[in-house]
Amino acid sequence: MSQAPFQDRFRDHPTLGIADWVLRGIGQVVLQNNPISGAVILAAIFYNSRIYGTVCLLGTVIGTLTAMGFKADRGMVKDGLFGFNGALIALALVAFTSRDFAHGNWPNWHLWSYILISASFTSVLVPAFGALLGPHKVPGLTMPFVLSGWWFLGALLQFSTIDVSSALKPTSPADFTGPRPDYTWGTWFYGITNGIAEIFFQDDWVSGVIILVGIAINTGIGAGMALLGSALAVGVGVVYGAHDDAIRDGLFGYNAALTAVALGGLFLRVNWPGFLYTVLGILVTARVWASMGIFLEPTGMPVLTSAFVFVTWAMLLAARGFTALTPIAPDEATTPEENLSRRREG
Amino acid sequence: MSQAPFQDRFRDHPTLGIADWVLRGIGQVVLQNNPISGAVILAAIFYNSRIYGTVCLLGTVIGTLTAMGFKADRGMVKDGLFGFNGALIALALVAFTSRDFAHGNWPNWHLWSYILISASFTSVLVPAFGALLGPHKVPGLTMPFVLSGWWFLGALLQFSTIDVSSALKPTSPADFTGPRPDYTWGTWFYGITNGIAEIFFQDDWVSGVIILVGIAINTGIGAGMALLGSALAVGVGVVYGAHDDAIRDGLFGYNAALTAVALGGLFLRVNWPGFLYTVLGILVTARVWASMGIFLEPTGMPVLTSAFVFVTWAMLLAARGFTALTPIAPDEATTPEENLSRRREG
Amino acid sequence: MSQAPFQDRFRDHPTLGIADWVLRGIGQVVLQNNPISGAVILAAIFYNSRIYGTVCLLGTVIGTLTAMGFKADRGMVKDGLFGFNGALIALALVAFTSRDFAHGNWPNWHLWSYILISASFTSVLVPAFGALLGPHKVPGLTMPFVLSGWWFLGALLQFSTIDVSSALKPTSPADFTGPRPDYTWGTWFYGITNGIAEIFFQDDWVSGVIILVGIAINTGIGAGMALLGSALAVGVGVVYGAHDDAIRDGLFGYNAALTAVALGGLFLRVNWPGFLYTVLGILVTARVWASMGIFLEPTGMPVLTSAFVFVTWAMLLAARGFTALTPIAPDEATTPEENLSRRREG
Repeated sequence: MSQAPFQDRFRDHPTLGIADWVLRGIGQVVLQNNPISGAVILAAIFYNSRIYGTVCLLGTVIGTLTAMGFKADRGMVKDGLFGFNGALIALALVAFTSRDFAHGNWPNWHLWSYILISASFTSVLVPAFGALLGPHKVPGLTMPFVLSGWWFLGALLQFSTIDVSSALKPTSPADFTGPRPDYTWGTWFYGITNGIAEIFFQDDWVSGVIILVGIAINTGIGAGMALLGSALAVGVGVVYGAHDDAIRDGLFGYNAALTAVALGGLFLRVNWPGFLYTVLGILVTARVWASMGIFLEPTGMPVLTSAFVFVTWAMLLAARGFTALTPIAPDEATTPEENLSRRREG
Repeated sequence: MSQAPFQDRFRDHPTLGIADWVLRGIGQVVLQNNPISGAVILAAIFYNSRIYGTVCLLGTVIGTLTAMGFKADRGMVKDGLFGFNGALIALALVAFTSRDFAHGNWPNWHLWSYILISASFTSVLVPAFGALLGPHKVPGLTMPFVLSGWWFLGALLQFSTIDVSSALKPTSPADFTGPRPDYTWGTWFYGITNGIAEIFFQDDWVSGVIILVGIAINTGIGAGMALLGSALAVGVGVVYGAHDDAIRDGLFGYNAALTAVALGGLFLRVNWPGFLYTVLGILVTARVWASMGIFLEPTGMPVLTSAFVFVTWAMLLAARGFTALTPIAPDEATTPEENLSRRREG
Repeated sequence: MSQAPFQDRFRDHPTLGIADWVLRGIGQVVLQNNPISGAVILAAIFYNSRIYGTVCLLGTVIGTLTAMGFKADRGMVKDGLFGFNGALIALALVAFTSRDFAHGNWPNWHLWSYILISASFTSVLVPAFGALLGPHKVPGLTMPFVLSGWWFLGALLQFSTIDVSSALKPTSPADFTGPRPDYTWGTWFYGITNGIAEIFFQDDWVSGVIILVGIAINTGIGAGMALLGSALAVGVGVVYGAHDDAIRDGLFGYNAALTAVALGGLFLRVNWPGFLYTVLGILVTARVWASMGIFLEPTGMPVLTSAFVFVTWAMLLAARGFTALTPIAPDEATTPEENLSRRREG
């Protein structure tokens, strides 16, 4: 009689199951279907801020319960697929309404109620994008978060009971004409580590390292890809001469790191063409982050993880058109390591 | 031998049929396939303004004739499905080029010719969105109007022969930081009734009431939902503290009222989960209206019914993913009452 | 034994094939699958500027080689379908970073490397849009170029090593209130010829005429349609009173000319309803160009060929809904003349 792997012991537990699904939901933000990864990542957020940790947990719970209330597919609920967008929208709403972006401020009751509806709604958007993309065997990724992020952050500018921070300030974009900044080792070190932390809106390089450990618990290849993605994105910023602050804060890296995790072994088998394709995706994601920033600047809205979603969608939609690549359907994709071994067995 | 219901006596009439289809087209703006509803709504518009009444009628006629000219599906033509987007684009073009938004100004011949092409083109967009959404059993709603509205209103800024009104003024969005306005009973009363009237660009609460009667002739549940949608949207504005003027003018309500009509019994069976789902849709639509306003402000373009379309599309696409909900395919959806009784018979 | 037509002699040649495919790629910008058309068009660009000619050739080569590297469908490669978006993105990147837009400046090595990645990525977007639109029998057109154009031009504003020209200046749109300009014969003559040249970012009426010859080599009807499209678009500008400069520079015409080529016989059989449908498409494309300009003005980004793509997509998606029209699937569409004769034989 086969035994479930250690990390799957509570997935079907009658009462503790919900805790398992919520932790997986936090792990799914970085595409890891593993409650231990989720727990480590949650600890990384609490390490930086008790407020953000609480908010992240609540957002995941709301998203998961909404899906259960309307009786969504139970397997998807158990895999944490209705939690991760709720986690992100809750974090975003607190981050962009707090005077202290780095650690967050406790929400007032208006904001709490606003978070409740917002996180609920992301669980509607999950099957909506599933219906559109499912036939193409492309996952919805964090698009429910991105779309509800734009909708629900944008609306805040019209409401007097919840004020947004100065980070959401509409301006007219200006061309950065130089001189090219003097980059240091700090540009690279903080840029790469914050690039991981910024996925969860955390401005703390230690959190970034702990999150990387959380990924590594589930997949070594995935953690390596996240690191590569963040590093190459810093490289794009350095080579073409972007603002030093933007690179250091991890803004170039957080989308590219996610693209790297998604394309580098998870939804695409790692072979030489697949690796080159992933590198191309990383380089393009770093630029698309930069471009989305320009497009959104007149509205004051943030890029969120839109660059990751758009580039990864395009490259997965295209992958079946290139016989050198081996795409893996979302419901078969587990970890890069398992994808490789299954292929060899098969 | 069965007799057609009273309201369907002229649907297949050889010469008077076109009048029936055009009136249904006006009714279809609020999703009512009933010529008497259409006639009452047309009267509601004429009550406020002879100009808007004439323009609404002409837009519906142009849309319907274009579809017949290119030989579109005759059943769709007879159901008024090629008229309602033409009605709306004609109303929008006059509303946003008139110095007197409330009652409209008579168009010059440049604008008349511009309306002709614009209303014609909406009848091309109807089967275009039908092709994209049909396989998902999701209706195109007023998206042909919204898209052509943005295209054809935007282009007007580049032409010297047709001037746009001050309502289309590009600006940089600002955060509304309060103090929270003092709302009165008028905020609620005018907000709710204008929320119905504003669907047709009418700034007149009496028109709103007559339009509600027009809906009630076809479906009592639908009229109740429209009222609920407009009221809850006013509630969103009041709770979160929006500008009093925006609420009173019905701007918060007109998208939410449409979402309520679409989700509340028409394309989704009314049961408890369906009702909660509709309420969630209403609350979200009110916010998305607010957000779309911020996103469009730098271009000066109006939100139109985009919030209704985007939220309703998302929630209908998602509905098949929740077993607690019972979606109804567009070609079977008639009225909430018939949807309920058919289900009980079946 | 049948002999391949003159223009197809090198399509399957073991070593010279690549030259054939690249020239077809240049021809495919204007939807002509003919290497001689491509060669004539390349000459038209070199006539205006050695820099633009070189850049256009290189972009096509990069796009084609990328597709071959990831093993794309060989038939599509041979038809030049992986080259034309690369040609356009390379031209756009040089045009909008050159102080001398008319003739271009030689790129620095930063820009060369930037062009390399950009042109490569368009070849990923080709099968991505193919996956989305293929089931609807609608071609991707130049959307890979448009999307990567916005992404990669937008990102340049964040980089200090590559400066953009004053043509990419974010501003707030203003309504053109007149007086209506005094148009001359030059408005019409330069407007129509530059409308063809501007497809390739060339500000030179002679280039426009040579490009038209290049199209005529493959299809007389297509060349006539391109001329009609550019002329009617000038007409739209003149009738509604647009800025004289915009018309003269061919800005009104270049999208409309492409819509005319696509709908006027290539993807839709030429009959009376089809011709009227094409004329409607031309008139609408001219307006959508004007509108997209307003929507993009706050970001400073150019319209590129987005108006052509959006209108043509909508009208082809809709065409199957009108029985008066005869759409032709992309893989059967060759030239208007062949489409007509095949239909008669069949």
